Amino acid sequence: MGIIVQKFGGTSVATPEKIHKAAEKVVAAKKAGHQVVVVVSAMGHTTDELIDLAKKVWGGRDGQPPKREMDQLLATGEQVTIALIAIALAAQGHEVISFTGGQIGLITDENFSKARVKQIDHKRILDPLNKGKIVIVAGFQGITSDGDVTTLGRGGSNATLVAIGAVLKADVCENFTDVNGIYTADPRIVPDARLIPEISYDEMMELSSVGASVLQTRAVEFAKKYNVPIHVRNSQTDQPGTMIVAETKAMEHIVVSGCALKKDLTRVTLKQVPDQPGVVATLFSAIGQANIVVDDIIQNVLPDKTANISFTVEHGDVADLKPVVDAQLKAMGSGGAIYDTDLAKVSVVGVGMKQSTGVAAKMFGALAQEKVNIQNISTSEIRISCLIAKADADKALRAVHAAFNLGKA
Amino acid sequence: MGIIVQKFGGTSVATPEKIHKAAEKVVAAKKAGHQVVVVVSAMGHTTDELIDLAKKVWGGRDGQPPKREMDQLLATGEQVTIALIAIALAAQGHEVISFTGGQIGLITDENFSKARVKQIDHKRILDPLNKGKIVIVAGFQGITSDGDVTTLGRGGSNATLVAIGAVLKADVCENFTDVNGIYTADPRIVPDARLIPEISYDEMMELSSVGASVLQTRAVEFAKKYNVPIHVRNSQTDQPGTMIVAETKAMEHIVVSGCALKKDLTRVTLKQVPDQPGVVATLFSAIGQANIVVDDIIQNVLPDKTANISFTVEHGDVADLKPVVDAQLKAMGSGGAIYDTDLAKVSVVGVGMKQSTGVAAKMFGALAQEKVNIQNISTSEIRISCLIAKADADKALRAVHAAFNLGKA
Repeated sequence: MGIIVQKFGGTSVATPEKIHKAAEKVVAAKKAGHQVVVVVSAMGHTTDELIDLAKKVWGGRDGQPPKREMDQLLATGEQVTIALIAIALAAQGHEVISFTGGQIGLITDENFSKARVKQIDHKRILDPLNKGKIVIVAGFQGITSDGDVTTLGRGGSNATLVAIGAVLKADVCENFTDVNGIYTADPRIVPDARLIPEISYDEMMELSSVGASVLQTRAVEFAKKYNVPIHVRNSQTDQPGTMIVAETKAMEHIVVSGCALKKDLTRVTLKQVPDQPGVVATLFSAIGQANIVVDDIIQNVLPDKTANISFTVEHGDVADLKPVVDAQLKAMGSGGAIYDTDLAKVSVVGVGMKQSTGVAAKMFGALAQEKVNIQNISTSEIRISCLIAKADADKALRAVHAAFNLGKA
Repeated sequence: MGIIVQKFGGTSVATPEKIHKAAEKVVAAKKAGHQVVVVVSAMGHTTDELIDLAKKVWGGRDGQPPKREMDQLLATGEQVTIALIAIALAAQGHEVISFTGGQIGLITDENFSKARVKQIDHKRILDPLNKGKIVIVAGFQGITSDGDVTTLGRGGSNATLVAIGAVLKADVCENFTDVNGIYTADPRIVPDARLIPEISYDEMMELSSVGASVLQTRAVEFAKKYNVPIHVRNSQTDQPGTMIVAETKAMEHIVVSGCALKKDLTRVTLKQVPDQPGVVATLFSAIGQANIVVDDIIQNVLPDKTANISFTVEHGDVADLKPVVDAQLKAMGSGGAIYDTDLAKVSVVGVGMKQSTGVAAKMFGALAQEKVNIQNISTSEIRISCLIAKADADKALRAVHAAFNLGKA
């Protein structure tokens, strides 16, 4: 019997009752003979409430509160949960110890609000584990080598889960959440969406990057690198869930595994950018240095030797993006930026796509039939994405899901 | 211009508005040319809410939640406030940095829930201070040398205030609170209570130990040791407040400086304790090892060669006390314990008492006139305390306050 790392998301620890429900899952794994490490998120909407509090104190001024202080603030959410889970397990007579990110030496870079894990002192987890204790770790947080508190970005608890699974060479990372697993599409939008019992790391990464919110791309990437299986399960039921594993031969026969929707996209259009070599490179390198991911880049060169450049970013990155864009526009002497928030992206993903043809045509046909206008197309080896109007988002997802027969039999 | 350490209690940072009010006090000190360190408590009733949450999770089981985990939990309260105060100051354009107890290397012993400060890494505060930053520190918390989070007990933020004032050799520790300063008695009970402009460390320690809740005995003791003046002020007004300083010649003329009331006392009576040498010593040494302070010890030897021993403790210590008492009773083969929570203690304090006579007589007379029965008397060189029924508490305080003419002219 090896090590199991279990993670409970915010909704799974939102109340004292749910904390006890989570503790039952921990105890079951312990009683089955495993060494158990538990990673937890902040309770329910705690993180959002803390952000609201900070906004109130910041008081609507220009710019944003210092990110170092935001991380200092937000890290308290998970610290509350680790103590409460530990207390719940102690109440049932189990030996338990809780740790913040800093206490297990989870060192990150200094990129506050979306820091990356650099190392974990696995000895600090293994010592109590080998003494028979259940170890509880705060997800979503770490410290810099100078001791400043950092957070790993939204969903960062999954990054913690997988990083700990990797350094401990865990048998499995169990990701307990409020859904039964990974579905062929969001069941809130597509009623006949089907649970996927097994999916490859690559498919999961693609699905995550285009809108499946259960797991973050980065966490899955990390799991793939260290070949740690992730088991996505419902914390309130005993459903079998979804296993995320390395690609198998059998998976190649599935052309499309699932589809996903992203509604939180902003398109930025920079007008009258000088059409000179290097201008675009300078622009996107500045945006990249600000740790902002861009997609759907389109450049139209106009007769007056200037270009309109547009690209999409997530809504959440716009506040960070604006000062970067403003500085670039100033340097270029260019004409200004337009921010358009009414966009969505629908995507299909499947490893079988590598050996299959006609997938794109089938997708475009399904969208055409629903009169959904495609504004841009982006692809990877196992994914096709179409940028569409936000108003068309839900019907586009249902159309694509039906076209590939992803629903229940 | 030297270093000022300011501390804001929970009521002074209870809302975003109050946090800005506190920030104004910080900015004023900074603008006056001082280097400013700010110590903060948890917002409003945060600590109590966290304790309630832990109790819910513990679920009424015997015993208490593990103290290490309680400290892990409670320390989040101050961490929220340091970030918010830092954000409020940053919003006004000030350079600022926040630190948890751990981040300034505030090392304590391992006595969770009432740990004592062993050292502070003053360099971690001085470096940013010397770069012109305002430094914000979480009160009430520290870490052990193993990195476990500890708390310093209720009111521990004042211990943090004074400890930082001492290591930085600060000019003054400003204790901002929701009252105007130290009064001759609690003004909620004694309407004509008067603000004391200046009081000695010793008097303040005595008043604190017998019920004046503004400052803890331990914090004042520390301030006396390092001769750091404490200035108690109202965070919402510009009142002059009370200075707590070393004793001066002038103070000797004040026979009684103030009086105080303690209502949170439990009297424990152990029945049929064997009247043998060493029994009492063993009992109180066990209680002392549990870090519980006892007072008003009375022993009655009965004709059957057993004794009844009674003593008082604070209500808050009863849960810790019970298992100690039970173990002692078992070892002694004795007859059981009675816990009586209906007691109070009224006290008068003044350095002039050392050279004055008749103080005790005047106090007892005032109580007798109000028909208040005195159940026990304890004294120090500058204090007289009477144990009385809780029902008599308020009228006893008013009687004593009037007898020594402590009210407004």
